[in-house]
Amino acid sequence: MATLRVPASVPPADEDCGQLRKAFAGWGTNEALIIQILAHRNAAQRKLIREVYAATYGDDLLKDLDAELSSDFQRAVLLWTLDPAERDALLAYEATKRLTASNWVIMEIACTRSSQDLFKARQAYHARYKRSIEEDVAYHTAGDFRKLLVPLVTAFRYEGDDVNMTLAKSEAKLLHEKISEKAYNNDEIIRILTTRSKAQLNVTLNQYNNEFGNAINKNLKDDPKDEYLKLLRATIKCLTSPERYFEKVLRLAINRVGTDEWALTRVVTTRAEVDLQHVKEEYHKRNSVPLDRAIAGDTSGDYEKMLLALTGHGDL
Amino acid sequence: MATLRVPASVPPADEDCGQLRKAFAGWGTNEALIIQILAHRNAAQRKLIREVYAATYGDDLLKDLDAELSSDFQRAVLLWTLDPAERDALLAYEATKRLTASNWVIMEIACTRSSQDLFKARQAYHARYKRSIEEDVAYHTAGDFRKLLVPLVTAFRYEGDDVNMTLAKSEAKLLHEKISEKAYNNDEIIRILTTRSKAQLNVTLNQYNNEFGNAINKNLKDDPKDEYLKLLRATIKCLTSPERYFEKVLRLAINRVGTDEWALTRVVTTRAEVDLQHVKEEYHKRNSVPLDRAIAGDTSGDYEKMLLALTGHGDL
Repeated sequence: MATLRVPASVPPADEDCGQLRKAFAGWGTNEALIIQILAHRNAAQRKLIREVYAATYGDDLLKDLDAELSSDFQRAVLLWTLDPAERDALLAYEATKRLTASNWVIMEIACTRSSQDLFKARQAYHARYKRSIEEDVAYHTAGDFRKLLVPLVTAFRYEGDDVNMTLAKSEAKLLHEKISEKAYNNDEIIRILTTRSKAQLNVTLNQYNNEFGNAINKNLKDDPKDEYLKLLRATIKCLTSPERYFEKVLRLAINRVGTDEWALTRVVTTRAEVDLQHVKEEYHKRNSVPLDRAIAGDTSGDYEKMLLALTGHGDL
Repeated sequence: MATLRVPASVPPADEDCGQLRKAFAGWGTNEALIIQILAHRNAAQRKLIREVYAATYGDDLLKDLDAELSSDFQRAVLLWTLDPAERDALLAYEATKRLTASNWVIMEIACTRSSQDLFKARQAYHARYKRSIEEDVAYHTAGDFRKLLVPLVTAFRYEGDDVNMTLAKSEAKLLHEKISEKAYNNDEIIRILTTRSKAQLNVTLNQYNNEFGNAINKNLKDDPKDEYLKLLRATIKCLTSPERYFEKVLRLAINRVGTDEWALTRVVTTRAEVDLQHVKEEYHKRNSVPLDRAIAGDTSGDYEKMLLALTGHGDL
């Protein structure tokens, strides 16, 4: 469930554009007005606003936002305003660049989007970067990381409910066998995790748990500092319980010395329109404090207001 | 260039359906009429015929064709009548089944279709088989074959003309280095061949040829009987000169004891609407005999007539 709140009656796009233009005018910038509009429009509405803005003023709304805003607030507004597919393409692109490299972000995009949405991100990547996402991921990674990440980003998983119990049993056994041999980068483990449907994986991993007495991720903790094993566990979590995965990303981003604003912004902007309500519930359960209170305690100013609006706490 | 010939004035779909229905009626089947209609309609027209046929008679045209026709002629008509994406899905599905297994067919579909068409085949595979194409390919293959085929079928290559010369030089060098070490299944070789755009690969492989004095495929002939090396060479040929690849498939299908009808039918039905004219020219050049004469010499009856119609020789 989404946390995005859209007013019952949304003004026409040209009116929103006029207000945004007003917010940019003069010496100061009216950040509150920008939040009031953009943080309360869904993807289709934001897209229309960008189109009408370009047609009316001959300017690119994203460029104007970029010029008017700064720092974490700027990044949150820009990421949020982007079309989800373009946003994923941008996040994936950054994740393959040296200074912002992140195997986790690549994995997160590959595993938590629907098959169709992941494909749309790949199309947006072509359009924007004149290359394929897998091309950059493969070039940027090596060894076991590449072996796992490339099939993850190129997957187009079946999304129906059909599952095969016989297969689940045999593949649970196969997973257990390879994990017992500590062959964590084994071809069969990679094959199963990167090609099977999420429904099928769920059945397989439940079977694993029933048959062998441990959740698979418990058996993948041989060396808690091994980066590949960490990524493998996160992959499994993303594929089977994305809301628990995102809760942990938020928890780690908030409960550290100096907030990890990139992670916080990424999770809030990419999930607000998808399942952030569910993530919030997980967060509250796990941390005994509501997510919005945690965010308010760790952030400030317009950035805080933007995040709170997206998590469902802004004025409409 | 396509060889398919469509009449200047195509009858409305309901008229085509009435004629087909007539061709099926009574004791015999009017094969000539079936060829006259279906072999001279493009993909959109055939699709419409199937829809109107189902709406008018409540029957599936493909099922009726299946019941009325037999053997090689039947397979040619069925494959041809299918929508290209459904046809590719069917061919890929067969290629992962034990009795009809073929790594070559999987590679051929992955490497000679446009990125968008390959994706459509993956969508059609979901719809028809309730699984993903990569899931079945990965399950059916192992070792080096899997390592090459899975990224090939999941690729969504960039298709613009932008190429990077610096990258081409460094990757040509890298390919040469790994090939010199006989590391034919090396991760970097696989990465380059499975992720780079066809335009970029062309530049890289020309650079390879210029710099190292041999076409890459010459250097991949270490052991002419090695099945993996054969597939690797065919992959490179499909990606860079598909018409030469298809010429060879046709040549081998025809110049053997007993024609390979499956290969012949596959190439003719999948390329007639794409580039069979170009393949025909290659064939004539290489074999000093026109393709249609070679087909006529090796096949007979309605099957021959169907293939000749698709290669551009039927009456309109």
